[in-house]
Amino acid sequence: MTIKPLSDRVVIKMEEAEETTKSGIVLAGSAKEKPQVATVLAVGPGGLVDGKEVQMTVKVGDKVITSKYSGTEVKVDGEEVIIVRQSDILAVVE
Amino acid sequence: MTIKPLSDRVVIKMEEAEETTKSGIVLAGSAKEKPQVATVLAVGPGGLVDGKEVQMTVKVGDKVITSKYSGTEVKVDGEEVIIVRQSDILAVVE
Amino acid sequence: MTIKPLSDRVVIKMEEAEETTKSGIVLAGSAKEKPQVATVLAVGPGGLVDGKEVQMTVKVGDKVITSKYSGTEVKVDGEEVIIVRQSDILAVVE
Amino acid sequence: MTIKPLSDRVVIKMEEAEETTKSGIVLAGSAKEKPQVATVLAVGPGGLVDGKEVQMTVKVGDKVITSKYSGTEVKVDGEEVIIVRQSDILAVVE
Amino acid sequence: MTIKPLSDRVVIKMEEAEETTKSGIVLAGSAKEKPQVATVLAVGPGGLVDGKEVQMTVKVGDKVITSKYSGTEVKVDGEEVIIVRQSDILAVVE
Amino acid sequence: MTIKPLSDRVVIKMEEAEETTKSGIVLAGSAKEKPQVATVLAVGPGGLVDGKEVQMTVKVGDKVITSKYSGTEVKVDGEEVIIVRQSDILAVVE
Amino acid sequence: MTIKPLSDRVVIKMEEAEETTKSGIVLAGSAKEKPQVATVLAVGPGGLVDGKEVQMTVKVGDKVITSKYSGTEVKVDGEEVIIVRQSDILAVVE
Repeated sequence: MTIKPLSDRVVIKMEEAEETTKSGIVLAGSAKEKPQVATVLAVGPGGLVDGKEVQMTVKVGDKVITSKYSGTEVKVDGEEVIIVRQSDILAVVE
Repeated sequence: MTIKPLSDRVVIKMEEAEETTKSGIVLAGSAKEKPQVATVLAVGPGGLVDGKEVQMTVKVGDKVITSKYSGTEVKVDGEEVIIVRQSDILAVVE
Repeated sequence: MTIKPLSDRVVIKMEEAEETTKSGIVLAGSAKEKPQVATVLAVGPGGLVDGKEVQMTVKVGDKVITSKYSGTEVKVDGEEVIIVRQSDILAVVE
Repeated sequence: MTIKPLSDRVVIKMEEAEETTKSGIVLAGSAKEKPQVATVLAVGPGGLVDGKEVQMTVKVGDKVITSKYSGTEVKVDGEEVIIVRQSDILAVVE
Repeated sequence: MTIKPLSDRVVIKMEEAEETTKSGIVLAGSAKEKPQVATVLAVGPGGLVDGKEVQMTVKVGDKVITSKYSGTEVKVDGEEVIIVRQSDILAVVE
Repeated sequence: MTIKPLSDRVVIKMEEAEETTKSGIVLAGSAKEKPQVATVLAVGPGGLVDGKEVQMTVKVGDKVITSKYSGTEVKVDGEEVIIVRQSDILAVVE
Repeated sequence: MTIKPLSDRVVIKMEEAEETTKSGIVLAGSAKEKPQVATVLAVGPGGLVDGKEVQMTVKVGDKVITSKYSGTEVKVDGEEVIIVRQSDILAVVE
């Protein structure tokens, strides 16, 4: 069973805390806006969003930094994922 | 008796909780924005919405993920449905 | 005496509660946004609204679903009507 | 002494309560947004408003329905008038 | 010493209360938005404002009606003036 | 050491209170929005700002009136300056 | 390990307080919006942002002034960086 995001939306999965530590990325703890590293699971087709052309630049497998509160949490097949807009993705880490 | 949504609106019906469990999708419980799985019952014609061209990409029968608070609940022939904008639909699940 | 709505506005009249039940439509009771069924009495000419072209798609006699708080109530010749924008009309019921 | 409204503005004068009753129009009493019937005294030239072309469709002498809180009250030669934007005028009554 | 307003801004000077009475204009007293009559002292060049073309239609010497809270008060050579946007000017009185 | 403002930003330096009095300009004291006279130290290149073309009309050395709360204070080489957008500058005084 | 910012985003690193003092720049202390000097570590590709073309004008190594609260803090390889939009960068210092 798969989630196919619409429009400019992206399905991401937060990295486990251990994996995050191993990769050397530790996020600053802020109560207001907590940044996060996640893996991209699915990418929407882009196209016209609010009347403006959006091209998708992230791809499946990318490790991305986003903000915790910009998305909707969904549990699929027992796995928690988050659906965000591509514009909520700040950067790709390599 | 049928509901024909205007513009970019979509009529959806929430899946029953049992069906949801069977399909393997369980939604994270959040008091602020509770994601949901629903079935599309009717799709508006799209066209100019606030001066911008909108093409409808969801179709009748699609299982979609949306947010609980983005829509208007209506009871038709004893059945509760919700009318949302297509932009409130986050993803299609298959 | 008649009301001729300007621009993209529509004059509607709420169906009586009895008639509503007869037609099989019962609205969900929500304190925040109470959906409603109404009959269209008059339709504005459309045209440029806030600089954007609006075409009127509802017509006199349509049964429409709208929201209670999106409009202005006026009593004409002893009859209460509501003036809404067409974009506040969610769907047509048949 | 006359008031010449700028841009898309319209000078209106509220009908007296007695005249309102005689014409058969009684406004619903709402503390938040009280609709009103008024007579148009002067109409601005229209043109570019916030970068968008606005054509004036109301004319002097029209009886219009507007909302009480969308305008600025001014007293000219001892007579109270209100200056509103044309977009605040909901309908013309005949 | 002179003030040259930028863009679509206009320098106005409130009429004295006595002069206001003499000209027959008395403003309605409202704590929220107090309308005022003022004389135009200087007019900006207009042009692109927030990406939109603005043409200046008021001219030096015009008596205008504006709102008290839409502008910045400045004292020049001991004289209090107000700098407003042209769009804050509701009408010209003659 | 110099500050080169980006985009439509302008670096200004508030005139000393004494100098202000000497030039005959005294600002009205308002707790909400305190207007100010300042000297322009540096001007950004203009260009596309939020997708709209902005041309810079102020120049280094101009005495300008702006509002206190529309800018960011920075201390450079012991001298306090403020970085504002050109659209926050109300007028030039001569 | 590197952070590649998306769109119009820029990765910056705050200068140490000592270095700031040495370079002669001291930031005004304001509880609401605290300006800062930072070094640019990475620059996004620009392009269409919210439907508008954005060209990147800052480059890696630039010393920039920005505001503390317009960005997301991330710790990469034990080093704290901030991801901001280019429009949040006020000026370059040289």
